[in-house]
Amino acid sequence: MEMLKEKIRQEGLVPSDNILKVDSFLNHQIDPVLMMAIGEEFARLFADAGITKILTIESSGIAAALTAGLKLNVSLVFARKKKSVLMNEDVYMTDVHSFTKNETNQVTVLKKFLPAGETILIIDDFLANGEAALGLAHLVEQAGSTVAGIGIVIEKAFQNGGARLREKGFRVESLARIASLTAGEVTFVEECVQA
Amino acid sequence: MEMLKEKIRQEGLVPSDNILKVDSFLNHQIDPVLMMAIGEEFARLFADAGITKILTIESSGIAAALTAGLKLNVSLVFARKKKSVLMNEDVYMTDVHSFTKNETNQVTVLKKFLPAGETILIIDDFLANGEAALGLAHLVEQAGSTVAGIGIVIEKAFQNGGARLREKGFRVESLARIASLTAGEVTFVEECVQA
Repeated sequence: MEMLKEKIRQEGLVPSDNILKVDSFLNHQIDPVLMMAIGEEFARLFADAGITKILTIESSGIAAALTAGLKLNVSLVFARKKKSVLMNEDVYMTDVHSFTKNETNQVTVLKKFLPAGETILIIDDFLANGEAALGLAHLVEQAGSTVAGIGIVIEKAFQNGGARLREKGFRVESLARIASLTAGEVTFVEECVQA
Repeated sequence: MEMLKEKIRQEGLVPSDNILKVDSFLNHQIDPVLMMAIGEEFARLFADAGITKILTIESSGIAAALTAGLKLNVSLVFARKKKSVLMNEDVYMTDVHSFTKNETNQVTVLKKFLPAGETILIIDDFLANGEAALGLAHLVEQAGSTVAGIGIVIEKAFQNGGARLREKGFRVESLARIASLTAGEVTFVEECVQA
């Protein structure tokens, strides 16, 4: 998605070889026009997938899931992240480890908002090692619903999350794929290899 | 806002005399069409206020702030909530106490995304005792910017938050004002007293 890549080139910060900061438009400050374009692109990519509901995770997934939901005309539900919660029979729950923050969160969603038999699109802002997306997929599985696809705003393609998800048979669509962040420079995966 | 009130009447749950649960459309599952209408209504109400930026707080304020930002054509920034963070010179910080959860969070926003001289619209999903809105207003004050208004999706008008904010001179616009939740019943504040 060229508009997104251009924004990453202009405003993305690379403080180290595996960190890309995009908090000026994606996950702290938000550019609503770009976010609407992101939702439209997810809707276009998954137009044929029969999506009935979107599942994301707080906080940074909410904006993209909302605009995609608007364009796909389906509701969204955001899973909640807590350090620890009491067991509660009303929720589906899974552990998600964050390597960046070195902490494990219990991720929950109320069962009544993730019923069986739905065709779910999972959306998140970043894909690195795939922990969050796998956790969300695990919630969908517990619910007896189907993951029709995983929509990612920015995939760090030099980490193994994309491979892990695709190996499990998930359809992953990333709007920008980062090949490397070496020497403070963002390099995208080339979508088309020229002859 | 009639569409919102109708949704509250249809789906709002009242487990006790001061709790209104609207997690089927506002703060866990989200109805994108209603959320867009909410953003449009905020944009209409504050059209003349010269808003240059929206400030909200994660997670439940993000969706309404995004749709309002889209309609007002301004960016938004969401403050982050943490139990405790190290002192950091790059952020504005304030304590916000939640009476519902009986916990105090440190709420932060990166200084670079809340510069001086902005005309800020604060948006949040609920107004009860006003702690969150006052905390956000305190961040704006630290930044040397101006709070032009506070947009609230649902105000529990039987609690003192609205009065606290209005006494301080803030313009508060609530899209639905709850007069009482007695006996499991939602009663709205009547906007027009008939002769």
